Amino acid sequence: MYELTMLQAALADGTADRRCAFEVFTRRLPNERRYGVVAGTARVIDAVKNFRFTAEQLDGLPFLDGRTRTYLENYRFSGQIDGYREGELYFPNSPILTVRGTFAECVVLETVILSILNFDSAVASAAARMVTAAEGRPIIEMGSRRTHEDAAVSAARAAYLAGFVSTSNLEAAARYGVPVGGTSAHAWTLLHTDADGRPDEKAAFKAQIESQGVGTTLLVDTYDIRQGVANAVEVAGTGLGGVRIDSGDLGVLARQVRDQLDALGAYDTKICVSSDLDEFAIASLRSEPVDTYGAGTSVVTGSGAPTAGLVYKLVEVDGTHVHKRSRGKASHGGAKQALRACRSTGTAVEEVAWSIDEDAPDLGGVLNTVQLTVPLIRDGEPVDDLASLDESRDHLAAQLVSLPWEGLALSRDEPALSVRFIGL
Amino acid sequence: MYELTMLQAALADGTADRRCAFEVFTRRLPNERRYGVVAGTARVIDAVKNFRFTAEQLDGLPFLDGRTRTYLENYRFSGQIDGYREGELYFPNSPILTVRGTFAECVVLETVILSILNFDSAVASAAARMVTAAEGRPIIEMGSRRTHEDAAVSAARAAYLAGFVSTSNLEAAARYGVPVGGTSAHAWTLLHTDADGRPDEKAAFKAQIESQGVGTTLLVDTYDIRQGVANAVEVAGTGLGGVRIDSGDLGVLARQVRDQLDALGAYDTKICVSSDLDEFAIASLRSEPVDTYGAGTSVVTGSGAPTAGLVYKLVEVDGTHVHKRSRGKASHGGAKQALRACRSTGTAVEEVAWSIDEDAPDLGGVLNTVQLTVPLIRDGEPVDDLASLDESRDHLAAQLVSLPWEGLALSRDEPALSVRFIGL
Repeated sequence: MYELTMLQAALADGTADRRCAFEVFTRRLPNERRYGVVAGTARVIDAVKNFRFTAEQLDGLPFLDGRTRTYLENYRFSGQIDGYREGELYFPNSPILTVRGTFAECVVLETVILSILNFDSAVASAAARMVTAAEGRPIIEMGSRRTHEDAAVSAARAAYLAGFVSTSNLEAAARYGVPVGGTSAHAWTLLHTDADGRPDEKAAFKAQIESQGVGTTLLVDTYDIRQGVANAVEVAGTGLGGVRIDSGDLGVLARQVRDQLDALGAYDTKICVSSDLDEFAIASLRSEPVDTYGAGTSVVTGSGAPTAGLVYKLVEVDGTHVHKRSRGKASHGGAKQALRACRSTGTAVEEVAWSIDEDAPDLGGVLNTVQLTVPLIRDGEPVDDLASLDESRDHLAAQLVSLPWEGLALSRDEPALSVRFIGL
Repeated sequence: MYELTMLQAALADGTADRRCAFEVFTRRLPNERRYGVVAGTARVIDAVKNFRFTAEQLDGLPFLDGRTRTYLENYRFSGQIDGYREGELYFPNSPILTVRGTFAECVVLETVILSILNFDSAVASAAARMVTAAEGRPIIEMGSRRTHEDAAVSAARAAYLAGFVSTSNLEAAARYGVPVGGTSAHAWTLLHTDADGRPDEKAAFKAQIESQGVGTTLLVDTYDIRQGVANAVEVAGTGLGGVRIDSGDLGVLARQVRDQLDALGAYDTKICVSSDLDEFAIASLRSEPVDTYGAGTSVVTGSGAPTAGLVYKLVEVDGTHVHKRSRGKASHGGAKQALRACRSTGTAVEEVAWSIDEDAPDLGGVLNTVQLTVPLIRDGEPVDDLASLDESRDHLAAQLVSLPWEGLALSRDEPALSVRFIGL
C-alpha cells in the first residue's frame, strides 16, 4: 500500500525521478548468531525482471490517480542491482543488496525483495548451522507441512543451498532441481491391519519393499521399536536400506537399534532419525550411530528466527548520502560495495564497505581481499553469468570454511566478523 | 514425496481403497498458550476442491508406475471433510478437521492441508492475543516484508480474521477483501532534500498531504521527533489525521507527542505506533495515549510460534480405530466430532469429543452445548453455506468472550479448556 501512495505523491511533487539507491542490510543477527547466509538472490532477480501490474490488479486500486496508474501499467525496472552472491555469508551492516534507479522504480520493489530475502535467508541461515552440526552426515529437508504451502517450496530450495542433501517437496524438485527423498508415514503402517483388524506391521513393510525396493527406509516406531526393527529385517533381509526413528530419546534408541541391526547381520542398514530436530539436537547426536537426519519444523521456521530481519533503506538521493537518525535505527548513507579481507591462510578477518563508485581502498597489502559485491542486474536485465543453485551451494560451503573457527560454534556470541566503513 | 510413494505401494497391495479417516489436531499449544485459533479452513476447502496433477507435473515424477500415474491423472477428492469452523478456538487434542475417504484420496492431501492450517492458525493465534492486548484499539497488519511473499498474503488474511482492522498488503485486499491501510516509509522523508541536499522534512509532509489529503498519517521520527511533530502540524494544520512513531521508547514518546499535539491544538490527531510490536509490547502500552498499533514481524511469524504444530494422523481404517504408540506421540483413534459445553452464563467449561457417527452424548443437561464440528465438504463438493471471512471474524470475536477470564491472559499456563473423549 504505502509503496503506491508514496509513488503517487512522488509523481505529483516531482521527486519520482530522483536517482536513488536503496540498500538491503540487517542491523543485527537474530539470537546472537555469528553469521547469516544470503539466500533468495536468484528468486529476487526473477521477481524484479517479471515485476508487472495487470489491468485487473490496477482496477482494484481505486485510490490511484491517472498518472500513477499509467506509470504502473508501463512499469519495468530499468536500473542496476548489485549485491552479495547467493550463498555468501553476511554480518550486521553488510550491504547485501543495492538497488539503484529512480525513486519511483525502486520504491515499489521493497516488499517483494525483502519478503524473498528475509524468508530464504532465515531458512538458509538456520540450515547452515544444522549442516555444520551434522559434521558431514546428510540431512533431508522434510518440513513442508509446517510452513505456508508456497513458502515450503522456497524453504526446500534454501535448505539445499545451505547443504541439505535433499527434500521431500516435489515442487522444489520440479522448479529448482533440488534432489528429492522420502520415507513413509506412520499412517502407512497403521493402514495395514490383518483380517481381524489387528495391526500388521509386517504387511506394511512387505508392501513398501515390493513397491520401493529393499533399499527403502522403513519407519519402525509406530508400535514397538524393537519389534519394528525385528519385523523390518525379517521382511527385508539384511540388505534393507534403512530404518527411521521418529520419536523418543533418539540417542538411546539409535544405539539400541544399531546393536539390534548388527546382531541381526544388517550391518549396512542405515539409521535415519527425525522428530523436531534443530541444530542443537543434531549436534547432541554426534556421537551416536546416526547415519541420516530428517529435519522439518525447525529448518522451515528458521530455528527460532523465522525472519532474517533485513531492511530496505534509502541511502542515496541524487548523489547525496542520506540516513535516518531514529534512535536505535541509525544507518550508514551512500551506495556501497564490500570486500572481505582474509589472512594468507584463507581465514576471514573483516568486511570492508566503501562507495560503489570508487576503487577498492588500500588495506596495506598484508591481507588478501575478496570482492563480495557483484553485478546482478544491469539496465533492468539480469547479467549473463548468474550462479546456478549448485554453484551457490558450493560457494557457501567454501565460505563457511573461511570463518574463524569460533564463528561456526552454535552458542550465542558476537558476529564472527564486523563491517568497517571507509570513506562513507 | 512420501505421499506418492505410499500411494503407489497402496495401489499395488490392494490397500488403496480402504475407507480411512485422517484427523488434524495438535498435541500441545506452543509456548504454553491457553488457546489456538483455527484459520485457513476456507483456503483448505479451495485447495482440496482444486487439487489436481498436471501432465507436466507427472512427467517430472519418473518414479511413478503407470497405475499410479493414471490414478493421479484422474485425481479428484470425492470424500467428506468435517471440522471446526474457521475462527473457532482449539485446544490440545481438539479434532479440528476430519478427512474421510479412501486411503489413496486422503493420503495425498496431508501436506497441503497441514501447510495451510499450520501457517494460517499460527498467525491468527498470535494475532488474536495482540487484539486482546490492544483492548479495542485498532491494529494494522504491516508485516508482509518479513515473511515469504506468498505467505504474506495469507498472513494478512489470518490477522484480519483474528480482529486486525486492516493490512498494508494489497494482494490480500484483492484476493480476500481485507481492508487496506498504510502510512509512509522513512525513505519518503529522506527522499526530500532541499536544493543544497539538506533534509527537508516539511517538503515531504507537504507532498504527502497534497497527494493523500490531510487525513493521512505522517511518519515523524526520521530525524528529530519533536521537530517532526512541529513540522507535521505546521504543514498540515490541526486537522492532521495522524502521526506515526516507529522507533525509540514508544510509551514515553507517545506521551510527549500527545502533549505536543494537544499544545499545538491538534487534539484529534491520532498517534500510531509501530516497531516490532508483539502482544506484550502492545499490552505494555495500554495506559499510553496510543490510538493505533502497526504490527509486522511478530504477527506474520506467529510471535514466537511460527507454526501451529498441527498433525494429520490416520485414526480409522475400515471402521477400526487405529493409533500409533510412539513414545510421546500417542493419540486417540476413531473419527470424531466435538462440542463445547458452556455454563448458562455462556462461559465455556470443556470440549467433548465422540464418534462422528453417533448422536451427541448426554452430559446431564446442566450445561449448554455448542456443536463445534460442522460439514465442510460432502462427496468432494464444498457445502453451500460456508462462512465468509467476515462471518468467521465475528465468530472468533464471540468465542473469545466465552473463554474463562483467565484464558485470555498473555502469560504461560495450561490450556484454557481440555478435551474429554467419550466412547473412543
